[in-house]
Amino acid sequence: MPRYLIYAEGQFGTPASKTGNSVVRYSADRVAAVLDSTQAGSTAGRLLGVGGVIPVVGTVAEGVARGADALLVGIAPPGGNIPPDLRAVIQQCIARGMEIWSGLHAFIGDDPELSAMARQRGVTIHDVRRPPSGVPVGSGRVRDIDSTVVLAVGTDANIGKMTVMLQLRTALRARDVRAAFAPTGQTGIVIEGWGLCVDAVVADFIAGAAETVTIQASRDADIVLVEGQGSILHPGYSGVSLGLLHGSLPHALIACHQPSRDTFRHNPWLRIPPLRDVIALHESMAAPLRPARTIGVSLNTVELSDRDARAVIARVAAETNLPTTDPVRYDITPLTEAIVTFDRERRQAGSRL
Amino acid sequence: MPRYLIYAEGQFGTPASKTGNSVVRYSADRVAAVLDSTQAGSTAGRLLGVGGVIPVVGTVAEGVARGADALLVGIAPPGGNIPPDLRAVIQQCIARGMEIWSGLHAFIGDDPELSAMARQRGVTIHDVRRPPSGVPVGSGRVRDIDSTVVLAVGTDANIGKMTVMLQLRTALRARDVRAAFAPTGQTGIVIEGWGLCVDAVVADFIAGAAETVTIQASRDADIVLVEGQGSILHPGYSGVSLGLLHGSLPHALIACHQPSRDTFRHNPWLRIPPLRDVIALHESMAAPLRPARTIGVSLNTVELSDRDARAVIARVAAETNLPTTDPVRYDITPLTEAIVTFDRERRQAGSRL
Repeated sequence: MPRYLIYAEGQFGTPASKTGNSVVRYSADRVAAVLDSTQAGSTAGRLLGVGGVIPVVGTVAEGVARGADALLVGIAPPGGNIPPDLRAVIQQCIARGMEIWSGLHAFIGDDPELSAMARQRGVTIHDVRRPPSGVPVGSGRVRDIDSTVVLAVGTDANIGKMTVMLQLRTALRARDVRAAFAPTGQTGIVIEGWGLCVDAVVADFIAGAAETVTIQASRDADIVLVEGQGSILHPGYSGVSLGLLHGSLPHALIACHQPSRDTFRHNPWLRIPPLRDVIALHESMAAPLRPARTIGVSLNTVELSDRDARAVIARVAAETNLPTTDPVRYDITPLTEAIVTFDRERRQAGSRL
Repeated sequence: MPRYLIYAEGQFGTPASKTGNSVVRYSADRVAAVLDSTQAGSTAGRLLGVGGVIPVVGTVAEGVARGADALLVGIAPPGGNIPPDLRAVIQQCIARGMEIWSGLHAFIGDDPELSAMARQRGVTIHDVRRPPSGVPVGSGRVRDIDSTVVLAVGTDANIGKMTVMLQLRTALRARDVRAAFAPTGQTGIVIEGWGLCVDAVVADFIAGAAETVTIQASRDADIVLVEGQGSILHPGYSGVSLGLLHGSLPHALIACHQPSRDTFRHNPWLRIPPLRDVIALHESMAAPLRPARTIGVSLNTVELSDRDARAVIARVAAETNLPTTDPVRYDITPLTEAIVTFDRERRQAGSRL
């Protein structure tokens, strides 16, 4: 696995460096340093609240001195082009023989100058949003695997679906459960070092991509935790979310919700329906292919006080009659228990057939 | 508009030449001849049952003599490559200055030899599955147009969604209604000479593509008839279908169904749910963004006897309480009336606000 120097020039710790922030949060041991000359000398812990003493450095050389052997482009520049400053850093890293990892929409490997340089230096460029060749059209192949498949779904995009699945993976493994995380988006892929961006494939292949990544994750796992994407009601991304549902064919769903959010991301005209309605819609849309049961609720209470957060968790638990928590802020055990119990009951029911 | 020589070598009249067959069926006046040397001398009417005296010819020269000024690739070769025979025909056509229209997954314009030849000759290659640049992420922009939007949805793929909308367009225009067809797939695009393949864009842009084509079709139309794709329950294509629903934001739906079909296309493991359930699911999935009412049912009874077809139409009409017909086989008026009535009531309700 690579040890990253995360490029976040001028932006580390802001939402603009989301990919970088997430890697620090979930794979701190994979991060050697963060490159942001405007905040050099500080630490991830100080700027982000996580990542402890991971240093913020001002040059590639300092990052290498801290042990980095790969560059991770941790920002998403507007317009999709490669800004001059980033280009210069990529060139320096290639010259040093460092791998390049990027989740940009503009593929670094398609840049004539950078790709020629990488080829000459023998350096691999990982454009994680580039769809692999040979992704099939979805056809329910997940029915052939034995693993219990759990998918995170949500009332909106960017609401904590990846987060809860990564934390569940950690919590399940701590209980010696063979659980795997199936990365379906760029941040998840960078964290795991493999996966498939289901929103980056040609539309006809969304479900096939979801199938592929679910089956691959199941090889060494009894429980596959599939990273969710978007929302089946999001005006821009609903197609990706439904293809992911019908490709991964989950047995169980974790419903993710942010109680303080009223309207869909980037769509202030559209109110988010009540959580119970969204849960019912997911189950209705899954059922004709393979019934999926919602077994827990993961709330993102980041904008609420401790008191309000605890109150909303209690209220949602009562309304949905489901184990409910904020897995970042409070104990994740209710969700871990829900998965372990569901998996056991499913296998017992199967063995009785 | 181009006058096509339809390439269907060895396959005209079979399902393999679906694109070619459909263009003959709906745009016979745009077809000069069909190229299929194995059936040269015959006519479209004799081989396909439609298209009357459109001649089947054995050479490009004969097609040109019949008035063709463009080649339409009317088949879909397996594997996506350009077979040698087709390549030779494309070269002949480019040499004669004929436009090339293709719905192949492999873009003819990306073939170095053919694209260089076309450039040199000043010939345009229309790869209708190539996504245009600048397609936005969907964001509900269709709410800004005044037209009544009607979308064909279905219990499965390949069930008559394009057909009913093309026939409704003709029937509505015959009543002096300003109706437009919004092409969302390769056959519709070739027939209309414009449009956008919503299943060929990158997954994040399905809804945005649907928005774009709906808004464009609305410019000169009071009623926009959006070509449907797939089914929101199809294991391979559901994401495309939902993105199309949430991008086009229809006011009304025409539900398409083939009563003689039991399982989903290419997915014999999966039974098609009852039509009423599929209608309810579509309305549930549309409602949070913009309520859509199903106003008619279009049945594909091609595999049934006249007696059985009439019986099933009566049964479905009773079950759904909706105007129901097979628009190819019987009178389309029940659906035309349903749209005209819906449009009038919608505008009256709007003016009362």
